[in-house]
Amino acid sequence: MLLSVFAVIRVILVQPEGEYNVGFVARLCKNFGVKELYIVNPVCDVTKGREFAVRGIDVLNESRVVQTLDEAITDLDLKIATSSIADIPGDFLRKSVKPWEITKLILNKRVGLIFGRESVGLTREEISKCDLLLHIPTNTEYPVLNLSHAVGIVLYEINRNAIQNSAKISDEALRLLDKYIREVVDTIKKNPQDERIYYSLKRTILRGIGDEEDARTIIRFLRKIYLRINGDI
Amino acid sequence: MLLSVFAVIRVILVQPEGEYNVGFVARLCKNFGVKELYIVNPVCDVTKGREFAVRGIDVLNESRVVQTLDEAITDLDLKIATSSIADIPGDFLRKSVKPWEITKLILNKRVGLIFGRESVGLTREEISKCDLLLHIPTNTEYPVLNLSHAVGIVLYEINRNAIQNSAKISDEALRLLDKYIREVVDTIKKNPQDERIYYSLKRTILRGIGDEEDARTIIRFLRKIYLRINGDI
Repeated sequence: MLLSVFAVIRVILVQPEGEYNVGFVARLCKNFGVKELYIVNPVCDVTKGREFAVRGIDVLNESRVVQTLDEAITDLDLKIATSSIADIPGDFLRKSVKPWEITKLILNKRVGLIFGRESVGLTREEISKCDLLLHIPTNTEYPVLNLSHAVGIVLYEINRNAIQNSAKISDEALRLLDKYIREVVDTIKKNPQDERIYYSLKRTILRGIGDEEDARTIIRFLRKIYLRINGDI
Repeated sequence: MLLSVFAVIRVILVQPEGEYNVGFVARLCKNFGVKELYIVNPVCDVTKGREFAVRGIDVLNESRVVQTLDEAITDLDLKIATSSIADIPGDFLRKSVKPWEITKLILNKRVGLIFGRESVGLTREEISKCDLLLHIPTNTEYPVLNLSHAVGIVLYEINRNAIQNSAKISDEALRLLDKYIREVVDTIKKNPQDERIYYSLKRTILRGIGDEEDARTIIRFLRKIYLRINGDI
């Protein structure tokens, strides 16, 4: 649900050809909390995507089928086209951004992510109606991702950005970590150069800790070690 | 091709049930320059995945079908299990890392990414054979990604990081870290529940380490502690 706090995301599929992709995209929308799915002039039977939508079936049922791209993008603040062919030298329309470069642009906006046909992607005219062209970097030998996998990667990237910086560790745990790292290092220190152990250990542990439970386990570990070395247990 | 400069990645599918997923995964391997695809005891007809592999057909043709997970992971430096169910409070085996947290650990290593069955994922026994459990953050309402979409996201993340570049940690340092974490924890362990300290500490340290120098300092620290507790210095 995090995603929806940050932006309204609409996934727009232009003339999808494979019903499995439509179903997978509905599932991905559900996986990443995207509520708006628009399908422009599909050339497959969208209802056959149900089997692949699984618990994204409500997104599929509530998706809107429209006849033109214009109808799907008219009320959006930012329109992002996607392509597996990008950065053709000298072709300004084909200069692309990477998935992680759009995340800071989309906050609090109504954003459309526009994905083209499995066979030929988006036309130049369709791309020209958008604000940005996004390209997912891959192996240059075979850069063409399947449609629904491209959708999954872009939604993952947006969600990734929304949740980073969200891990919380209590002030008390931080204080205790520092205290015990300090005490253990002081206990084993032999010369001034060993002071680097304190900094290295503290940096590694603070960066590596995932949550409060981890923090408490590490604190307990350090405390046990301290007591053992000092012969108290 | 970037990916292959940084690590040998092996994608391992355990008992895949849908041939379309096997095909899609072969295509994704090709998209991201992954050459090694292992399939453990498939319950679908792998050859029917061809239709979905498209230009990843060579990866599918060269994939290895083995009967047990052990056969697929025996020669690897780092084994990363994946799960859509993670972080069950109090279950140390289910504490997970995020895709972007593994990227600096895998440089120059032989890494296995292990994906479970579409229906039930990996067993606890399978997870316990791995070094880390990776979970892709999604909407908590429906966190279950389709198998091949999970593969795509993890490979994308590794490639993203390879593009953005980062520090590297040697095989030897990784091995010594694991050895001394194990030994120190065994030394202070009092009851079976203390086993969680090993997992928590290992996860925190592997995730938090910035570079080889950090790794060496932490190894020295763990070694000193081990020797002190055991009365050797």
